[in-house]
Amino acid sequence: MGSDSDLNIMQAAAEMLQHFNIPFELTVVSAHRTPLRMVDYATGARARGLQVIIAGAGGAAHLPGMVAAITSLPVIGVPIKSSNSIDGWDSVLSILQMPNGVPVATVALNAAKNAGILAAQIIGSTDQTVAAAMDAYKAQLNNEVNEKVNRLKQDWNNGFDQ
Amino acid sequence: MGSDSDLNIMQAAAEMLQHFNIPFELTVVSAHRTPLRMVDYATGARARGLQVIIAGAGGAAHLPGMVAAITSLPVIGVPIKSSNSIDGWDSVLSILQMPNGVPVATVALNAAKNAGILAAQIIGSTDQTVAAAMDAYKAQLNNEVNEKVNRLKQDWNNGFDQ
Amino acid sequence: MGSDSDLNIMQAAAEMLQHFNIPFELTVVSAHRTPLRMVDYATGARARGLQVIIAGAGGAAHLPGMVAAITSLPVIGVPIKSSNSIDGWDSVLSILQMPNGVPVATVALNAAKNAGILAAQIIGSTDQTVAAAMDAYKAQLNNEVNEKVNRLKQDWNNGFDQ
Amino acid sequence: MGSDSDLNIMQAAAEMLQHFNIPFELTVVSAHRTPLRMVDYATGARARGLQVIIAGAGGAAHLPGMVAAITSLPVIGVPIKSSNSIDGWDSVLSILQMPNGVPVATVALNAAKNAGILAAQIIGSTDQTVAAAMDAYKAQLNNEVNEKVNRLKQDWNNGFDQ
Amino acid sequence: MGSDSDLNIMQAAAEMLQHFNIPFELTVVSAHRTPLRMVDYATGARARGLQVIIAGAGGAAHLPGMVAAITSLPVIGVPIKSSNSIDGWDSVLSILQMPNGVPVATVALNAAKNAGILAAQIIGSTDQTVAAAMDAYKAQLNNEVNEKVNRLKQDWNNGFDQ
Amino acid sequence: MGSDSDLNIMQAAAEMLQHFNIPFELTVVSAHRTPLRMVDYATGARARGLQVIIAGAGGAAHLPGMVAAITSLPVIGVPIKSSNSIDGWDSVLSILQMPNGVPVATVALNAAKNAGILAAQIIGSTDQTVAAAMDAYKAQLNNEVNEKVNRLKQDWNNGFDQ
Amino acid sequence: MGSDSDLNIMQAAAEMLQHFNIPFELTVVSAHRTPLRMVDYATGARARGLQVIIAGAGGAAHLPGMVAAITSLPVIGVPIKSSNSIDGWDSVLSILQMPNGVPVATVALNAAKNAGILAAQIIGSTDQTVAAAMDAYKAQLNNEVNEKVNRLKQDWNNGFDQ
Amino acid sequence: MGSDSDLNIMQAAAEMLQHFNIPFELTVVSAHRTPLRMVDYATGARARGLQVIIAGAGGAAHLPGMVAAITSLPVIGVPIKSSNSIDGWDSVLSILQMPNGVPVATVALNAAKNAGILAAQIIGSTDQTVAAAMDAYKAQLNNEVNEKVNRLKQDWNNGFDQ
Repeated sequence: MGSDSDLNIMQAAAEMLQHFNIPFELTVVSAHRTPLRMVDYATGARARGLQVIIAGAGGAAHLPGMVAAITSLPVIGVPIKSSNSIDGWDSVLSILQMPNGVPVATVALNAAKNAGILAAQIIGSTDQTVAAAMDAYKAQLNNEVNEKVNRLKQDWNNGFDQ
Repeated sequence: MGSDSDLNIMQAAAEMLQHFNIPFELTVVSAHRTPLRMVDYATGARARGLQVIIAGAGGAAHLPGMVAAITSLPVIGVPIKSSNSIDGWDSVLSILQMPNGVPVATVALNAAKNAGILAAQIIGSTDQTVAAAMDAYKAQLNNEVNEKVNRLKQDWNNGFDQ
Repeated sequence: MGSDSDLNIMQAAAEMLQHFNIPFELTVVSAHRTPLRMVDYATGARARGLQVIIAGAGGAAHLPGMVAAITSLPVIGVPIKSSNSIDGWDSVLSILQMPNGVPVATVALNAAKNAGILAAQIIGSTDQTVAAAMDAYKAQLNNEVNEKVNRLKQDWNNGFDQ
Repeated sequence: MGSDSDLNIMQAAAEMLQHFNIPFELTVVSAHRTPLRMVDYATGARARGLQVIIAGAGGAAHLPGMVAAITSLPVIGVPIKSSNSIDGWDSVLSILQMPNGVPVATVALNAAKNAGILAAQIIGSTDQTVAAAMDAYKAQLNNEVNEKVNRLKQDWNNGFDQ
Repeated sequence: MGSDSDLNIMQAAAEMLQHFNIPFELTVVSAHRTPLRMVDYATGARARGLQVIIAGAGGAAHLPGMVAAITSLPVIGVPIKSSNSIDGWDSVLSILQMPNGVPVATVALNAAKNAGILAAQIIGSTDQTVAAAMDAYKAQLNNEVNEKVNRLKQDWNNGFDQ
Repeated sequence: MGSDSDLNIMQAAAEMLQHFNIPFELTVVSAHRTPLRMVDYATGARARGLQVIIAGAGGAAHLPGMVAAITSLPVIGVPIKSSNSIDGWDSVLSILQMPNGVPVATVALNAAKNAGILAAQIIGSTDQTVAAAMDAYKAQLNNEVNEKVNRLKQDWNNGFDQ
Repeated sequence: MGSDSDLNIMQAAAEMLQHFNIPFELTVVSAHRTPLRMVDYATGARARGLQVIIAGAGGAAHLPGMVAAITSLPVIGVPIKSSNSIDGWDSVLSILQMPNGVPVATVALNAAKNAGILAAQIIGSTDQTVAAAMDAYKAQLNNEVNEKVNRLKQDWNNGFDQ
Repeated sequence: MGSDSDLNIMQAAAEMLQHFNIPFELTVVSAHRTPLRMVDYATGARARGLQVIIAGAGGAAHLPGMVAAITSLPVIGVPIKSSNSIDGWDSVLSILQMPNGVPVATVALNAAKNAGILAAQIIGSTDQTVAAAMDAYKAQLNNEVNEKVNRLKQDWNNGFDQ
């Protein structure tokens, strides 16, 4: 992430990786305040054994795109709605609208949780254990809704029952 | 893709996959006109051997998110600026702003080429051949710029020479 | 509705249907977490006796459009301004900008009350009792304004009197 | 419609009503240039036998909302992207964002075709003949996609086959 | 104004008219809940001696434009940022983007004070007493800034002194 | 107007003033290229006999607001969509969003015609001849619509007849 | 700055100038309430020894552009998100979108701190002392991040170490 | 500039620098395709004798901000409206909304000409020859307007004459 002030948003990504038992490193790399550290970080990423990079940043958010410019690993970008952001549009567009040749896999505003899930899905595209855990996770989302359906039916005494 | 009218945009993804020698299937699956075909398509995707799905759609673009709701494979979404789009904002936001639990890896507006590259990067996160081809591709992008630098220097007789 | 967290917004629709003595079912159907339940819900809706469906969702709000893709009943969509929404634009555009062939009758942001009224108007287009109640409702809105006019006139000792 | 210059957009609604054998009247009623005609039109609409009103307008588009203010029939609004429109946002927001008590069933920008389909769906919620025709229409949309799937498969010699 | 909930915003217009000793009427006229009252109000406005009409409304704000459709008096529109507004864009565009033939003199979001001043300027374009009071008002704005300049100079011990 | 390149837009204002037999002066005053000319122009406007000023400008359009800062006459602002404008939003917001104390009567994007009509309405608020001409103009708008209604009825053999 | 209510934002610029030991004047100059003071201020700026002007304003923010219209010094504009601003877009676009011939060096919304740094960079483009201080400032930003990296590593026991 | 396809926009900056007799280098440095070249370019800029850097880029435009992250020279950013841009918003926000500590002096969309003028103003803040040329340039802009005023007066036989 680009700043430790983003930690309260970005730790949701870490928690999902822990959920899927995927080891990870979590650190601050600022494109604007530590540009050379960013170059080093991205240059050595694959050799250090990383398979995916999640980069979150706010405002004119250059970190995800710059990391993607250097590494050939897939990079997931998390737009963060920082203070003085113009409603989050700045970080969304700075991350999403990358030129041809250098994609960033962008998720929703502040959606660090989804960045963690997407990273797991990428790993799960070849890792059967993670793939099975992802299927279980989706089944759990489904079940949670069904429980709410039952509670709503008791409260309102009506409603569709599959 | 959601409609065969998206083919002129989406074939750039196919071309990048051909560039990286990655086999793929290309078809039309409409979330709104063939919803059951979409369910079948997404349900069987992993079993059929797919590792990544690229889904492009315009307007209220539900195809990428709905496919991601069903499969546990990573899904890349390409927002397409269709006619009567409100400047592309509708497809961008319909694909990007997915709720927690169901990410879509969104690329820039009309950026099917980047979707193909991102798919290759995902495969290349474990496939060394594709990873090497990706490094070569990035080197080629770099070289093309350097050639333009030389041409500009001749035209303007000045300019930074690394 | 797509999530039980939408209930505080969506119950205003239920209350308007109660006002017009229109029976209804209220439940959670998530396009993204329970896609098959959504298919079942929409597929059986007309046979189960429904005349109109109201679907509310936030963010990349696919529920209204996906239900409309499956059923041939009229579907009313309520864009909900969820947390991490980009000012509500995401849900508005995801619901409104449906492609040709599959309309969703979209109401204003968070306007579940108007969704209930619109559903009653649709039923009232052939049901004389509901139509009469709708005329009475509109007369009541008119009267409430007139009472405010009188109160303002006392406070400001001026103002137009019809 | 608010102006005869909207006819090239709005006649798609008429064509869909003709497709579903639903009789209709087509005329110009301008909220801003003929406000009293608009009042007369909306006031007498139900008594004249109308079941649904489709109103299309551009810019600061007041026609749909003002008709909905007067009649208790369901009103479908079509935002039209007129010249000097600010990208269509003005007509979309002028029609969609109606206050509590007075809904307009808004469809996508320029989506007169969908307005015609929605009107047919509203009538089809009680009229079995129209309902059956609507189911057939949706099946036809589905089939048209399947034909395109076959053509794509011949061109690309690959692709998912349900 | 379109609703008594707009009074906390709109009374700033009344206060400016009181400042300039311009008699006025203040009332609620809802385009959507009391459309016929609106027609009556606007139709009789000039005969009742009004010279200018200030109309404030939020959301899909049709009151200013509809009043301007009926009367030939100048109409000043005040966009109000109501609850569930999409950041005020809806009321701004609904009031500003009037079609050719029917202008509304639009002021800034929530700027009822400026609407009162503009009304006084319109009257002051022929009324010398109001014109003189307007010149005095502008001089007072100028003086208030100069006093703040002096206070800042004391605090910061620097600054431009005219 | 701020530039002679705005003449093709702004002459519609002149034509409306000619229609209402209102004498006017038409010239270029650039806030950014001739700031002192702008100060002179605005300072002397009332003494020179002007009753209303129409100012049109594009981009960061400061002319209307700066003229309004200097003169106490009513100022009508016309946002112009110039080349390199960001869809007209820049000129709309630069003119509309004036601070408390200094209103600009803003009309729609490129709506110089409406600026001319609004100027005539302002003059007509005390000038009976102009007021009568304005009523006639509105009646003419109404009649033009009625003629189109008749033509549409012949083409479509249906439609509402008041 | 255009108003003393902007002081809480704008004093961050003053603090950065103090950090770099650059003398400055801080005052209020309102384009709209004290237009002649603004003309005087800008006209005499270079002769008074100023090298750069920082101008901050909100809403329809004309101060930076008007000062730039008069002086030939570089002008830095700070868009301020004032109350009743439309999410800051008005001040951003009013300052940024200046026409050809009259640039304003615009910084981010509310970014008075960056305006101070940019002013120091401009002075530092020829002043070696300021340039050295700027290099030191950037090194300090870099170091602050590195300290956070270390703290994060202790908390999470992982993370990239350069 | 980030790409040679930006040359048709960016050469206007070069032409203004030529107008003011300011030597310059013109080259392509891509943040995304040649990130290490960008680091080298920015790192050595001051030592190579540069006083100001102008960086133009489109889409997710990271070049200006990344150069500003590395050098302590003032950096002017030119947002370019590239193909597939979302109306230019992406490049504007990616360049403008820089975080605290790292400003970019942003000019209007496509306003390379203004970037050249701003660079000259920065140099002219200490260089008397350039300052004098800048004053002459502003006088010329003023005169060009006055000539247009005269031509308009002949065409329209009216208009303000200072």
